[in-house]
Amino acid sequence: MKLLPLVLAAAFGMLSAAQAEDGYQLWLRYQPLEKPALAGYRGVGTEVVSASHSATAKVTADELVRGLSGLLAKRIAAGDSIRTGGAVLFGTPTNSPTIASLKLPLENLGPEGYVIRSLTVKGKKITVIAGNSDIGALYGAFRFLKVIQTRAPADHLDIVSAPAVKLRLLDHWDNLDGTIERGYAGASIFNWWTLPEHVSPRLVDYARANASIGINGAVVINVNASALILTRDYIAKVAAIADTLRPYGIKVYLSARFSAPIEIGRLPTADPLDPAVRAWWKNKADEIYHAIPDFGGFLVKANSEGQPGPQDYGRSHADGANMLADALAPHGGVVMWRAFVYSHEVPDDRIKQAYSEFKPFDGKFRDNVIVQVKNGPLDFQPREPFSALFGATPATNTGLEVQITKEYLGFNTHLVYLGPLWQEVMQSDTYAKGPSSTVAKVIDGSLFGSKLTLMAGVSNIGADRNWCGSIFDQANWYAFGRLAWDPNASAGDIANDWVKLTFNNNPALTKPVVGLMMGSREIAVDYMTPLGLAHQMGTSGHYGPGPWVDDAGRPDWNPVYYARADRSGIGFDRTATGSNAVAQYFPAVADKFSKLETTPENLLLWFHHVPWSYRVASGRTLWDELVSRYTDGEAKVHAMAGTWAKLKPLIDAERFDVTADDLTIQERDAKLWRDASIAYFQSVSGLPLPAGMKAPAHSLSYYKALSWPYAPGQGGPGRKILPPPEDDTQH
Amino acid sequence: MKLLPLVLAAAFGMLSAAQAEDGYQLWLRYQPLEKPALAGYRGVGTEVVSASHSATAKVTADELVRGLSGLLAKRIAAGDSIRTGGAVLFGTPTNSPTIASLKLPLENLGPEGYVIRSLTVKGKKITVIAGNSDIGALYGAFRFLKVIQTRAPADHLDIVSAPAVKLRLLDHWDNLDGTIERGYAGASIFNWWTLPEHVSPRLVDYARANASIGINGAVVINVNASALILTRDYIAKVAAIADTLRPYGIKVYLSARFSAPIEIGRLPTADPLDPAVRAWWKNKADEIYHAIPDFGGFLVKANSEGQPGPQDYGRSHADGANMLADALAPHGGVVMWRAFVYSHEVPDDRIKQAYSEFKPFDGKFRDNVIVQVKNGPLDFQPREPFSALFGATPATNTGLEVQITKEYLGFNTHLVYLGPLWQEVMQSDTYAKGPSSTVAKVIDGSLFGSKLTLMAGVSNIGADRNWCGSIFDQANWYAFGRLAWDPNASAGDIANDWVKLTFNNNPALTKPVVGLMMGSREIAVDYMTPLGLAHQMGTSGHYGPGPWVDDAGRPDWNPVYYARADRSGIGFDRTATGSNAVAQYFPAVADKFSKLETTPENLLLWFHHVPWSYRVASGRTLWDELVSRYTDGEAKVHAMAGTWAKLKPLIDAERFDVTADDLTIQERDAKLWRDASIAYFQSVSGLPLPAGMKAPAHSLSYYKALSWPYAPGQGGPGRKILPPPEDDTQH
Repeated sequence: MKLLPLVLAAAFGMLSAAQAEDGYQLWLRYQPLEKPALAGYRGVGTEVVSASHSATAKVTADELVRGLSGLLAKRIAAGDSIRTGGAVLFGTPTNSPTIASLKLPLENLGPEGYVIRSLTVKGKKITVIAGNSDIGALYGAFRFLKVIQTRAPADHLDIVSAPAVKLRLLDHWDNLDGTIERGYAGASIFNWWTLPEHVSPRLVDYARANASIGINGAVVINVNASALILTRDYIAKVAAIADTLRPYGIKVYLSARFSAPIEIGRLPTADPLDPAVRAWWKNKADEIYHAIPDFGGFLVKANSEGQPGPQDYGRSHADGANMLADALAPHGGVVMWRAFVYSHEVPDDRIKQAYSEFKPFDGKFRDNVIVQVKNGPLDFQPREPFSALFGATPATNTGLEVQITKEYLGFNTHLVYLGPLWQEVMQSDTYAKGPSSTVAKVIDGSLFGSKLTLMAGVSNIGADRNWCGSIFDQANWYAFGRLAWDPNASAGDIANDWVKLTFNNNPALTKPVVGLMMGSREIAVDYMTPLGLAHQMGTSGHYGPGPWVDDAGRPDWNPVYYARADRSGIGFDRTATGSNAVAQYFPAVADKFSKLETTPENLLLWFHHVPWSYRVASGRTLWDELVSRYTDGEAKVHAMAGTWAKLKPLIDAERFDVTADDLTIQERDAKLWRDASIAYFQSVSGLPLPAGMKAPAHSLSYYKALSWPYAPGQGGPGRKILPPPEDDTQH
Repeated sequence: MKLLPLVLAAAFGMLSAAQAEDGYQLWLRYQPLEKPALAGYRGVGTEVVSASHSATAKVTADELVRGLSGLLAKRIAAGDSIRTGGAVLFGTPTNSPTIASLKLPLENLGPEGYVIRSLTVKGKKITVIAGNSDIGALYGAFRFLKVIQTRAPADHLDIVSAPAVKLRLLDHWDNLDGTIERGYAGASIFNWWTLPEHVSPRLVDYARANASIGINGAVVINVNASALILTRDYIAKVAAIADTLRPYGIKVYLSARFSAPIEIGRLPTADPLDPAVRAWWKNKADEIYHAIPDFGGFLVKANSEGQPGPQDYGRSHADGANMLADALAPHGGVVMWRAFVYSHEVPDDRIKQAYSEFKPFDGKFRDNVIVQVKNGPLDFQPREPFSALFGATPATNTGLEVQITKEYLGFNTHLVYLGPLWQEVMQSDTYAKGPSSTVAKVIDGSLFGSKLTLMAGVSNIGADRNWCGSIFDQANWYAFGRLAWDPNASAGDIANDWVKLTFNNNPALTKPVVGLMMGSREIAVDYMTPLGLAHQMGTSGHYGPGPWVDDAGRPDWNPVYYARADRSGIGFDRTATGSNAVAQYFPAVADKFSKLETTPENLLLWFHHVPWSYRVASGRTLWDELVSRYTDGEAKVHAMAGTWAKLKPLIDAERFDVTADDLTIQERDAKLWRDASIAYFQSVSGLPLPAGMKAPAHSLSYYKALSWPYAPGQGGPGRKILPPPEDDTQH
């Protein structure tokens, strides 16, 4: 059976199409079950039944037919009444009298939750997938297919699930010219040039993938926004996208450029308190909702990194956000206002600014405004402490923004599973209301009883055939959706599901691959920024090591600003003797981070300037520990590559090869990170390498001369690159 | 049988993979024959036999197995000896004693030609595919598969073929940042960032497609080149591409930036007569050939549109080209030196310059230099006369450059088949040696006995799943390869083959589709630039109409420079009373173009400034004719869309839909071109519209206000776009 598809594929000249495991099908491959497994599903999924004729019910039936036909290797029919035992009935109490009669526990599941239950109806054993809306049933259908995809028993199902977070969004940093800022998977999937006349069929597969993991919204353009997206022509293009995503329960949102009233509205100002400006936004909102009745709302990056904002007019973030909120409110739209702000004047400590700017305005934002806070106070580093804003604004809707695309984590070629990073954030305890006031409880609204909740992930999706630029980066897209649905989900369980769905259910494969994934983030931390270091990447590209960089546009863009390494030691003193950023946390947390001995070693240099001679837990000096962490990081990447190589017989050639190639690149880079970082910090510390430690392969000047022109993801028009002198491109 | 693949595909969950006719497989789909057709191929292609074990022989066997297995819907085996009747034996007299014994007429076919013959060996009827090299046999194998794909008899084959042009190249205008200048099919397929560690498997399919139509070289980066491509790191990346393309007979070439010795070599000058510069290029060539033993050579755009060149140092194009030629000669490399040059000082008539610059240097170029001349004297317009350089330089290798990507022909969304345009050029008579001295004879070398011949096409290939941004643009890639192999091939025959290979062999489909294709170029000429008009597109983007544009960087970038419309008439006087460009042609041609009455009407305004009241062949005045041509053009696009709509039952959904959507865009644009052009020229002529002609839908000011920000293909870093005022984006 397992060989059959290929043989037939060959026989029908579909070799390249069928044989190529190119990653396009993501975790929705629906490959036929192995014979033994198949036996376990006799009498399950014999037909698909629905009484609803909505667009969503139609795509739900299609997905169940596609999935069951593939998994069970036989044609499964869809109809509107139960004809055989093993039928899969889906719907809502409203559109299905049968489901209504079953009195399933749907009361508290909201519009998106679902119940999946095996039961007997009119003497027939069937599976019921029920929601309060067709969307809930769609989510349940994907969940039901996952049961079979992962080979779990399907004959006595009783699954109840509902999302803990209301808005589960992908933020696309896609530009209108097709480039993607911090995108490492090719051009944008949004084909602006040919919209609205032509909508790429790929957007349907994009919607399927998102719906399968519960993502219910997409911001389709970059937060560094062009006002052009708000013009009539582009609204028509966005409407065509919205029409395509709608059946899958996905709403479209737009990034709004604060100065749009000037740039496309021809107004003299964008002052949020100016009546003409407020009227312009109101009319603009009306225009958008006329074209897109279920438009989600605006995402705004204001007064940050040179973007326009209310402060340009002496107004506050609340003034700006509320103006847009008032324009959207009549239509039920929301404003996601980013807390990632820092002024042009460099402050004592950049990471304190988001808190300083927003804490004072707690309670000043409209109900349909949600402040979108990055997981850490800096910028998506391999490791940061959680942002002090979580828990600090009980009267303000507070959402979490994470970065799925790996801007600071080796782009698409380093294997780094982000589940553990996000779980670490979610489980961080803010102590806002005493112990176990976790970030997760802020995000799901339970801590302060917020109605409007949000988890946003900066997309890693592009037009590359495998969507994400690598197979394993698909896992980060998958994990994001799963965690947004349930912030307390386990990163390990999610990885285990993903491996089964993406590759196969062979334990000889799943166990080591899940192991690779779960260890990968800590390994990246070690070869890039161990012990609480941050932002040591070369400027602009953020790819390779640049701990020596001190000439960026402003001090707080420089790696040296963050490491603060000198002859005496290394690290950023954020205690009372330093920037006192610790004081932004609640006392229990602040106390822990204030003392060297109670600060977790993995955040040591984030909070403290530590003498090179300081003894860490291992008993080594800080200097020796730093060197050995870098060295471990490199060694463990070689081990990852070795583990992967052994799995070759268990994985299709194409996906095995591209991943092996990526690991080769990661090995090269981990060595580079280790050697360059040690070479630089040794030049600062003046200390000898610990006994037995290999010296860097090259001199510091060699590493300083390296450059990464044309590093991807610096997308968007306007960037000019000059080739470096030949000798500087030896990496 | 025809339904089977889908059913099975469904049964194995390969729906999306197998069902999706997304265009990826181009003209190599190898779908199973219809039952009746199948009967005609009993006893043909029962097995694949080869005695050679070269990399090329291996991919040839793979292709024959893939193709025959698909077409004949059964598993075809490959071996090294003939076991059954119906075997397909391929190879060379050197690697196959059987082929040697057959004494096939291979003497005059060169290294790339082939013989395909049905004959009997040791009592078995077999098909022999023979070449003087494995590459010849590979070309023959693709040709043999085409016989079956197009349902031609395969039991009495006697085919002999060899390419008429030596270098059949794709010029990629791909930038190192992944963008493509004048590319309309997504990002570059060359994944520079992950090379050399990872080579995309897509490059193998790229190589298969090129080999199937005889393309034997690729310039992999933009003529507006970055010197970085010549650095060590990038040479290693290029070598990985070369290794992938080599088995398919495709050599890699590079664009060479003339100032590279300064930019990456740290020399003070790039003077081609400077010994240090000459030494630098010689060493660079040695370095490249060390990594790529069969490297093809350099393509150079010098002293053109701001690119550096020998004239920066008071040297000639010959000095520059010969310096590079001397560096490459020891390794057998060639220099392709572009004749597309025009100085910074605007001359009397820009189109005269290539001739003026190069004619004087006839005979001054090295044997391994070939001057690459665009088909027309301007720049890839919908219609131009052939360049006067063809035939004018008997002692200089002269190659032809055409543009496959449709920079001036509606990008990827207008259905325009370029076969007729290229055939028109090939069949143009230069009279260089009296009548029938066609451009084709210059290109194939027969007119002057040139050894080094070239046809180069600016690629329309990108990372879009369908390669070219539309299905019908695949036909232009296909036609380019076929015409480069045989410059006298018929555009209609090529279109007929392409339709059969790409869609199916149903005459109800092939006849109307070939009709659409063959008429499409003349239709585009009519709605864009009828009667010999040229360069009326909006500046920079080159997409929409901009006949009024007069503010470009320099006069000869302005549409008004080319149309020269005024109260008295329209057109560019290039006779003795004007720029006298006609004098660059041989007398017979010059005479014809000098006189209004003998100038072909489709070039009228290219050569003459003609009074609005002039009577053309139709008996109409020029003004009335101009208006009716635009109007016809628009009407015929509507007719094209109507024809296509009727074909829906005969074409798979995905390829039908995307093409229908593109035609909707083309209808919108043809109307825009017609209305905007008439609105403008009427403002100049002051004449009324002919009776019964619809007035433009909007005022001239409306059309002037239109803009196409983010028009694709203006790729490459350094371009900044400002959104226009909202009211200017109503198109």
